[in-house]
Amino acid sequence: MKAAIFRGGGIVVDTMPEPVPARGQVLVKTLCCGICGSDLHAVKHARLMAEVTRRIPGRAPMDLSRDIVMGHEFCCEVIDYGPDTERKLKPGTRVCAMPVMLESDGPKGMGYSNKYVGGYAEQMLLSAPMLLEVPNGLPSDHAALTEPLAVGVHAVVKAALKGDEAPLVVGTGPVGLAVIAALRLKGIRPIVAADFSPKRRELAIKMGADAAVDPATESPYARLAPGRRVAVFECVGVPGMLQQMFEKVPREARVVVVGVCMEPDKIEPMFGIVKELSLQFVLGYTPEEFARSLRLLAEGQIDAPSLITGKVGLDAVKDAFNELGNPERHTKILVEPWR
Amino acid sequence: MKAAIFRGGGIVVDTMPEPVPARGQVLVKTLCCGICGSDLHAVKHARLMAEVTRRIPGRAPMDLSRDIVMGHEFCCEVIDYGPDTERKLKPGTRVCAMPVMLESDGPKGMGYSNKYVGGYAEQMLLSAPMLLEVPNGLPSDHAALTEPLAVGVHAVVKAALKGDEAPLVVGTGPVGLAVIAALRLKGIRPIVAADFSPKRRELAIKMGADAAVDPATESPYARLAPGRRVAVFECVGVPGMLQQMFEKVPREARVVVVGVCMEPDKIEPMFGIVKELSLQFVLGYTPEEFARSLRLLAEGQIDAPSLITGKVGLDAVKDAFNELGNPERHTKILVEPWR
Repeated sequence: MKAAIFRGGGIVVDTMPEPVPARGQVLVKTLCCGICGSDLHAVKHARLMAEVTRRIPGRAPMDLSRDIVMGHEFCCEVIDYGPDTERKLKPGTRVCAMPVMLESDGPKGMGYSNKYVGGYAEQMLLSAPMLLEVPNGLPSDHAALTEPLAVGVHAVVKAALKGDEAPLVVGTGPVGLAVIAALRLKGIRPIVAADFSPKRRELAIKMGADAAVDPATESPYARLAPGRRVAVFECVGVPGMLQQMFEKVPREARVVVVGVCMEPDKIEPMFGIVKELSLQFVLGYTPEEFARSLRLLAEGQIDAPSLITGKVGLDAVKDAFNELGNPERHTKILVEPWR
Repeated sequence: MKAAIFRGGGIVVDTMPEPVPARGQVLVKTLCCGICGSDLHAVKHARLMAEVTRRIPGRAPMDLSRDIVMGHEFCCEVIDYGPDTERKLKPGTRVCAMPVMLESDGPKGMGYSNKYVGGYAEQMLLSAPMLLEVPNGLPSDHAALTEPLAVGVHAVVKAALKGDEAPLVVGTGPVGLAVIAALRLKGIRPIVAADFSPKRRELAIKMGADAAVDPATESPYARLAPGRRVAVFECVGVPGMLQQMFEKVPREARVVVVGVCMEPDKIEPMFGIVKELSLQFVLGYTPEEFARSLRLLAEGQIDAPSLITGKVGLDAVKDAFNELGNPERHTKILVEPWR
């Protein structure tokens, strides 16, 4: 089969053997798969990511000398099942799943794995118990947004807001937009968003923000509802963001770190101390949050079409990685490996 | 009057004018005043502290070219009141107070102030509404522990533990010991403490820790009650502690930052992200927590005598600052300016 492979520090298109489902596994056709900002990070900081992962117990680092097929935001179609596996959904059924393969010693990620290919390949393997049928009628490209939406839903759950906070979402890429959507669904308003890009600010409003501020010309903190505890969602994920927030947020603020910063970062704890700040780092989602996100999309509660700005075949994945650097042009590019 | 003054980067003993109480103020005789680790930090990092304070809105930085009298853990005796001030407590009454002077534009700290002298002086001014009478019979030296105890009480309140966490207190200087006492009073156990000093570990057990570990020979994390969410109290306050905790704590741990690190610090956010850690920075206490701490001491619920390892007059404050560097010899040295 054909795949866009992360090899030698770049993306190349090549053929590779079709995966064969073992017991408990399902062979699926990849209908579409979103390109995630973390994939761009991972290409840029592959060595650092592998190095950090190596130092975290229980995480399997990528072996960069071997092929990796990224892609963890997918919608697929069931082809076949492994031996002794309950054939719950008929071949042809469209499914979503958390990008996780269940193994006897615990779940293993896919998308940054040498063992399991991600969605930038014509076919992939999923764990049978993880399959969620795409509710009737939801287009596959919208269903592929389940994963990034779940990240926002989870972040808002973990933020443990009481509902009377003044939320600020800093950075309105796909993750920030998902956070905005999740805040709006919870009725935590008014929502202030901040992004340098006019297009992204426009999208922030579309997804439910009440105000979208250009931090180059105006402090988003000045727009927050007064007298309420501030909850800032860091959705950028580059060094320096935390310290900037430490300096700018008011007393007792809650900082929810959703952006995935893979590099070391510098902070001045005194700002956190004097203001008695709290930080919550978040990652991923629970199976319930993932399933809920698929339902939200199926119920039309999320403006999915606004988020999808491009669709490419495997041959154009490399270019798409570059184009995603321009926030005016692109938000979410979907890979359709069968194109 | 005589005072131990922070001047030109060091502590000198000199005379200075006796303070004159204005309206709403009380002139008191300083009976005793504890030397706080923050005072040692402040002497060592005076410039940095002033610089950071300057960058935090609403905080008045120390002017290091002018005299500062430190000391914010005091027990005093009422001498006289300012004009038009309700004389609620008779002269001779022993009092404690938060080290805060109420002014028309908000509270002002004392102890790191050019305007209000702290407790390393024979006399000082307090705000009349802040006075708390020392409950009958509580010795003044024990009452002077109210402030550091309140820091621990506050940290445990802000930690917002549910009671089923596995607490670990890293660093058992006066602040760590106060945290241990506060955890014990709340019944959150078993409490594991970690400190390189045998004497401090002994004190940790005395204050209520169930185990005290030397991190040079054993990981304190290995001693935590299994299956429970870990809550780590950082009571050291030097660069590197946060990253060390990021690497060592288990998933979903809560890190409560009680130590006051005045220098910039480096962290790798990926550890926080992958483990979904939460951080709560804390500082100070509320008036209620301060009053409760005085009551706890008066009720004999805290082993105050074990904490007090020395008493000095003003002439020996400078030496005491140096001696406090040895955790085997000293925990809390009290200054008695009338000696």
